[in-house]
Amino acid sequence: MADRPPSPAAPPEPPAPAVILIEPQLAMNIGTTARAMLNCGLADLRLVRPKPKWPNEMAKRASSGAEAVLEAASLFDSAEAAIADLNRVFATSGRHRKMVKRIFTPREAAQTLRAEAAAGIRAGILFGPERTGLENDEMALADAAIHVPLNPHFASLNLAQAVLLIGYEWFQAGVDAKPLRLEHGDSPLASKDDLVNFFTHLERELDECGFLRLPDKRPGMVRNIRNIFQRADLTRQEVRTLHGIVTELVTKRKIRQ
Amino acid sequence: MADRPPSPAAPPEPPAPAVILIEPQLAMNIGTTARAMLNCGLADLRLVRPKPKWPNEMAKRASSGAEAVLEAASLFDSAEAAIADLNRVFATSGRHRKMVKRIFTPREAAQTLRAEAAAGIRAGILFGPERTGLENDEMALADAAIHVPLNPHFASLNLAQAVLLIGYEWFQAGVDAKPLRLEHGDSPLASKDDLVNFFTHLERELDECGFLRLPDKRPGMVRNIRNIFQRADLTRQEVRTLHGIVTELVTKRKIRQ
Repeated sequence: MADRPPSPAAPPEPPAPAVILIEPQLAMNIGTTARAMLNCGLADLRLVRPKPKWPNEMAKRASSGAEAVLEAASLFDSAEAAIADLNRVFATSGRHRKMVKRIFTPREAAQTLRAEAAAGIRAGILFGPERTGLENDEMALADAAIHVPLNPHFASLNLAQAVLLIGYEWFQAGVDAKPLRLEHGDSPLASKDDLVNFFTHLERELDECGFLRLPDKRPGMVRNIRNIFQRADLTRQEVRTLHGIVTELVTKRKIRQ
Repeated sequence: MADRPPSPAAPPEPPAPAVILIEPQLAMNIGTTARAMLNCGLADLRLVRPKPKWPNEMAKRASSGAEAVLEAASLFDSAEAAIADLNRVFATSGRHRKMVKRIFTPREAAQTLRAEAAAGIRAGILFGPERTGLENDEMALADAAIHVPLNPHFASLNLAQAVLLIGYEWFQAGVDAKPLRLEHGDSPLASKDDLVNFFTHLERELDECGFLRLPDKRPGMVRNIRNIFQRADLTRQEVRTLHGIVTELVTKRKIRQ
C-alpha cells in the first residue's frame, strides 16, 4: 500500500466509480456516505437534487474528516445529467422489481468495475432516497442492478452502509489476495531448531520433576506437549520467554535440593 | 433463502458468532450495531460495561427495527466473563500493534468462522470503545485479530460499520461454506473460561517464583505469554496437561520451602 497517494482525498488508480445520490433527504447521511466513500478510496460524489441546503455543516460534521469528498461533490438537477459522462451505471435496489435487468452482487459488480476501469471505462453507482429507493425511471438508466445479499427478513440498509458495502467490495477487488499475516512484532519466527531445544529443556525438567514418570505413557505425553507449542507459531523471542518460564518455575526447587 | 426461519431475530444455522462490544460509549452506536447485526443474520449481542444506561430508548430508535437484538442482549462486567463460554475469539483492531497475533481479513475470518461453526465451535468478535479501540489486555484474550483492508489514509470506521463489514462477510461466506475438519482427538476445544483459569494459575506461579518481578514489565510479559497460548487452539485436555506441567514443575519447590 506504500505506493498509494499521500492525500486522503486523492482518487486511487484506476479511476474509482462515482457515487450518485438521488434526492438524499438527510444531511447526516450525505456526511456518513462521504466517510464511507473515503474509507474505500472513492472520491467522486454526485448529488442529484439533495433536500438539505448545500454546502451543509451537519454533513461536514457527520463525515468525520472526509470533508474533502463533500467539498468536491458536484450538484445536478437530474439523474441523466449526473451520469452523462459515464460509460457504465449500476443501480442499487433493496426491492425486487418487475424489470428485466441483470442483477449483480456487490462482489460481482466490483470485479466488473475493476476490470472495466482498467480498460478506461468510467462508471457510477446510483443510490435512491433513503425511504423510497430509486424510481423505476432511474433504475431504467442503469445497465444493471446491484443487490446486496443480506438477511431476507431484515435487509434494509442505511444509505451510508449500502455505499460502504459496495465501496468495500470495490476496494477488496483491488487488493491482491494476501495470505494470512502473522504480526511478529520485532522478532522473527522461531526455527524448528529453536523449538527442539526448548522441547529438550522442558522435557528434561518434566522428567526430573516426575511429570513424565510413567514409561509407557511418556512418548504420547511428549508428543501431545510438543503439539501444543508447534501450533502456536512461536517467535524466537517467545521461545526465549518459554525457556525463562521453565527455568524460573524450577529454580527455587533446585536451589533447595 | 426460502428455507430460512421466519423470525427476523432467529439466528441462522450454524450458530452465528457473538458480537461483543467492550465499553461502548454511545447508545446510538449500540442501536445501529444491532441493526447491522440483524442485516447479517447475527443475533447474539453482548455488552461489556456499556456507558449508556441499559436498556436504552435511543439505542432502540437507532436500531430501526432490530429491537429484538437489543432486548436479547446480555450485559457483562468484564471481557473475560463475556467470552467465557466461547471457544474462538477474534479481536478487531484498526491499529497495528507490537503483538504476536495472527491477522485475518474479514473474508478470511468469515471462512474460518463458518467452517468452525459447522464443527460446533462457538465464536465471538470483540469490538473496542468507539474512540480508543481495544486495550492490549483485551486483544490478548483473542485467538487472532481481524483487520479490514481499507484506504490506509482514512481507515477509521464507525463502530456499526465495522460490525457491518464483518457481519456482511459472515453472511456471504454462508453461501458456500465448507466444513473444516478439525482433529481434536477425543477432547473438545477449550473454552475461554478454561484458558483464563490456566492463565491465572500460570501467572500466580510466575509471580511467586519471581519471573514477573518487574512491575513495569509485568503487563506486557503477561500479554505476551497469553498470546502464545491463545494461538495454540488448545483442547480441554491440553489445558489440563498444561495445568499439570505448571503444578509439577513447582511442586517440589513448594514441598521444600
